[in-house]
Amino acid sequence: MAYIKVEEGIPGIRSLFKFSPETGKPLCDLAEVLLRGPSPLSSSERELIAAFVSNRNNCMFCMNSHAAAARFLFDEDKQVVDDLLKNQTADSLSPKMKALLWIAGKVQSNGKSVTPEDIENARKEGANDTDIHDTVLIAASFSMFNRYVDGLDSYTPANEEDYLEMGKRMGQKGYHI
Amino acid sequence: MAYIKVEEGIPGIRSLFKFSPETGKPLCDLAEVLLRGPSPLSSSERELIAAFVSNRNNCMFCMNSHAAAARFLFDEDKQVVDDLLKNQTADSLSPKMKALLWIAGKVQSNGKSVTPEDIENARKEGANDTDIHDTVLIAASFSMFNRYVDGLDSYTPANEEDYLEMGKRMGQKGYHI
Repeated sequence: MAYIKVEEGIPGIRSLFKFSPETGKPLCDLAEVLLRGPSPLSSSERELIAAFVSNRNNCMFCMNSHAAAARFLFDEDKQVVDDLLKNQTADSLSPKMKALLWIAGKVQSNGKSVTPEDIENARKEGANDTDIHDTVLIAASFSMFNRYVDGLDSYTPANEEDYLEMGKRMGQKGYHI
Repeated sequence: MAYIKVEEGIPGIRSLFKFSPETGKPLCDLAEVLLRGPSPLSSSERELIAAFVSNRNNCMFCMNSHAAAARFLFDEDKQVVDDLLKNQTADSLSPKMKALLWIAGKVQSNGKSVTPEDIENARKEGANDTDIHDTVLIAASFSMFNRYVDGLDSYTPANEEDYLEMGKRMGQKGYHI
């Protein structure tokens, strides 16, 4: 039972969008443009950053759903998702993605902890302004989505399998409300 | 100098909205509906929660601008803003606002730290589902805005006076891009 009266059986953030469609609309618009709009980062890479930040915030709903979306989008290369989230290794990712995930981890902790050296290192590995902008905003926005879902204790399905269909739908159809 | 190339002289998050208007639009829509749309909480109370969370995240741009907006909206009662942010006392606020600020502080730290007792206490002081929802989402969304502004090291005017006009404009005209 969530802390506020939401429709039962609707998982996670979707029950909150239904409780408050006025705020749900811009939140969905943000997820859609940030994870699926134009960016030098692929949608699979952006979903991976979202799952990585959610994992660090211990938000099981966002972590499982965005990990499922990332696995769907990485397709044959989906092992990179579990390598990162379960085995804590980024060895199968590009040096640019490693440098951007380092920045995302800093932002998850506190915006001020990002240093000029972190940015310089990402640039050396090929990241441009938009890569850096999008990484910071994905990490920042999941610092919001995670707190919204957990701060209201919304319903979180327990098993990874429960998120398979959700991840596929997110990867295929996105986040329009 | 911000970490990415933004137009000089435009402060804080507005320089980032100009860099990325595609994400700026839903972010402004969110701020507008969340801080100024229908809610049992007044806009002054919602601006105060935003400034309180930004202060705890040490985000000087968001803290100063939303504190200025709260002072403008509280008008004759503006002392409550400095009581809370500078003197660390909530004694001039209602028991309901105190209980909601307690929840906002928990969300700022981590969504999972909010307990059923925190919610029960807010309800005892008169908070309903929408009060609680809006408080959690304001605290969550400023956990994003703060990280976005500071994670990209955007330009932050140094003096409280620099935010006077900004706060007045936010209080009067809001957040449409």
